[in-house]
Amino acid sequence: MLRNIERLRERMAALGISLRPHLKTPKSIEIARLMMASPEGPATVSTLKEAEVFAAEGVRDLLYAVSIVPNKLDRAVVLRRQGIDLKLAVDNEEAAEAVAARARGEGIEIPCMIEIDSDGHRAGVHPTDGERLVAIGRILHDSGAGLAGVMAHAGSSYGLADPDAIVAMAEQERAAAVGSASLIRDAGLPCPAVSVGSTPTAHFARDLTGVTEVRAGVYVFFDLVMAGIGVCGIDDIAISVLASVVGHQRERGWILVDAGWMAMSRDRGTAGQAVDQGYGLVADVDGRPYPDLIVSQTNQEQGIVTVRPGSGAVLPELPVGTKLRILPNHACATAAQHDRYHALDADGAVRAEWRRFGGW
Amino acid sequence: MLRNIERLRERMAALGISLRPHLKTPKSIEIARLMMASPEGPATVSTLKEAEVFAAEGVRDLLYAVSIVPNKLDRAVVLRRQGIDLKLAVDNEEAAEAVAARARGEGIEIPCMIEIDSDGHRAGVHPTDGERLVAIGRILHDSGAGLAGVMAHAGSSYGLADPDAIVAMAEQERAAAVGSASLIRDAGLPCPAVSVGSTPTAHFARDLTGVTEVRAGVYVFFDLVMAGIGVCGIDDIAISVLASVVGHQRERGWILVDAGWMAMSRDRGTAGQAVDQGYGLVADVDGRPYPDLIVSQTNQEQGIVTVRPGSGAVLPELPVGTKLRILPNHACATAAQHDRYHALDADGAVRAEWRRFGGW
Repeated sequence: MLRNIERLRERMAALGISLRPHLKTPKSIEIARLMMASPEGPATVSTLKEAEVFAAEGVRDLLYAVSIVPNKLDRAVVLRRQGIDLKLAVDNEEAAEAVAARARGEGIEIPCMIEIDSDGHRAGVHPTDGERLVAIGRILHDSGAGLAGVMAHAGSSYGLADPDAIVAMAEQERAAAVGSASLIRDAGLPCPAVSVGSTPTAHFARDLTGVTEVRAGVYVFFDLVMAGIGVCGIDDIAISVLASVVGHQRERGWILVDAGWMAMSRDRGTAGQAVDQGYGLVADVDGRPYPDLIVSQTNQEQGIVTVRPGSGAVLPELPVGTKLRILPNHACATAAQHDRYHALDADGAVRAEWRRFGGW
Repeated sequence: MLRNIERLRERMAALGISLRPHLKTPKSIEIARLMMASPEGPATVSTLKEAEVFAAEGVRDLLYAVSIVPNKLDRAVVLRRQGIDLKLAVDNEEAAEAVAARARGEGIEIPCMIEIDSDGHRAGVHPTDGERLVAIGRILHDSGAGLAGVMAHAGSSYGLADPDAIVAMAEQERAAAVGSASLIRDAGLPCPAVSVGSTPTAHFARDLTGVTEVRAGVYVFFDLVMAGIGVCGIDDIAISVLASVVGHQRERGWILVDAGWMAMSRDRGTAGQAVDQGYGLVADVDGRPYPDLIVSQTNQEQGIVTVRPGSGAVLPELPVGTKLRILPNHACATAAQHDRYHALDADGAVRAEWRRFGGW
């Protein structure tokens, strides 16, 4: 985990870009402090609950990077009034008007980033829709709420596997954000922050001219999806679920373990990749993967471990009680099923127990 | 929810069978008390954490219906020593030996059910493998640990849709459990409990001769998977995620909502059914579904709502801030993403907030 954190930190430093780590992945203050440049941030969050918890722990520079809904403004205002530099995100005039009205009513700034849709993946204003960008920007600026900048997220980078394609996606994300900022600035509006990021594009971007900060989260742990994309190796995956062998169905080639979808999550993110890892890749207790041994099916509290279909690997003999580590498809989803981390030293000893929170 | 609970209670009463509700679905003491025949149980749980939490709330007759791993015996012994009538499950000689050794060492009973594999779905002893059934039974009985009975779970009933097939599966489950019990009794061993159950088979079984109790959990809420199987109607689904419209991508026919896979879970249980409900069926705030409106894609904190592909339904006009209720594919999985329930009266008013726990 520390090596993953250091890798992206060095990369961003070499590119001369500020990193605003996304804390939605760990949801743990101890891990957040290892990811952030300072105990006060900057950082990105995906829920107001994260903003509240991390603000209470001393983080002050926060971007809530999911479009705001008007009914959540009460909680955002409480944080702003506590002196937290919380930025919100909007991608439409209705939400911007709601923020503007609230800022006027409260007599405070509620600065917002305009979300840019750089790849047709989810929310966001199209980067060439200058009319809408300027309309939203003007609502925010003229009301005193504040236009903090633009943000783009190349979510479709998770569906790539070719390094050149990720490099191209990183440039597309950069160009969308920088282009949108230009359209806003050309209209005489400020656009101080130009924020981009996803773990794949953050690791493959070659040029970030015009960008002021990069956001990424899953890089802290990495996972099988990221390994499938080629952003990391299996050895870089710094999170696993500790499980035990419960029994066998020998005639079917099954080993049953006490980690089902409740422990692994239902995430099947590798299903569409070249190597389908089922619900997770099975390693020994020291983290060394068995050849082609995966959790191929799950029910709520049990997983069925088999050799990957089509593989010639031999099912290992693992007696009842054998401890295993299961590497997850998607670290964010698997970690969300647990309320704490056991942090291991390089020698595998448990060094600390770190609380993880959830909810909204 | 109350109607769902009453429906199965009446059905079991008509069949003259005890219901041992599975509390893994709600993981809430308030809902558990509505499901159980008495505040002391009986009840089924899927984790020792559930056993501990519910025991602390006064539930005394508990079946932990997932095969025990030796490293979990410490916690089971603590509950037994507290006077909780906790039964464990085993499906192999190694686990039975571990329980037997512990029972001898402690000088206490640790009664176990033998899990029967009635449909090749997961763990369990094959119902005709009398040699193994008797071997396990003898280990438990002779050690003083105690042989509490046999249990079967027709998990593959979740993959059916034809009522006749579910009736047949219920009979298969019954026959496997009753047949196993006979093999055990024929060897001179006791087999007091004959436990079967899954929500589909519990609702379709016509004859439960020889069975002493039925287990079921998801019936308390029902969900889209159960509706797809035909066990309930959409109107019977008593759980939803309250979400808000965040924005639109009008040219794509998308409505964005603030419920992504973190709120809905990654469960795609309807993907293989006749009607694929995406990540959930979208209803208005009063719970009335919009025609063919589903959450077709999700990211962590946002869902993309569209008309079901191939449907002629019209995308409704839903302004930013509109509240929606999203009915889940799988109630157990979606509820697990949340730490509380808002219990609504028949008129839609919030009557209570009920805590839900997770973890192991």
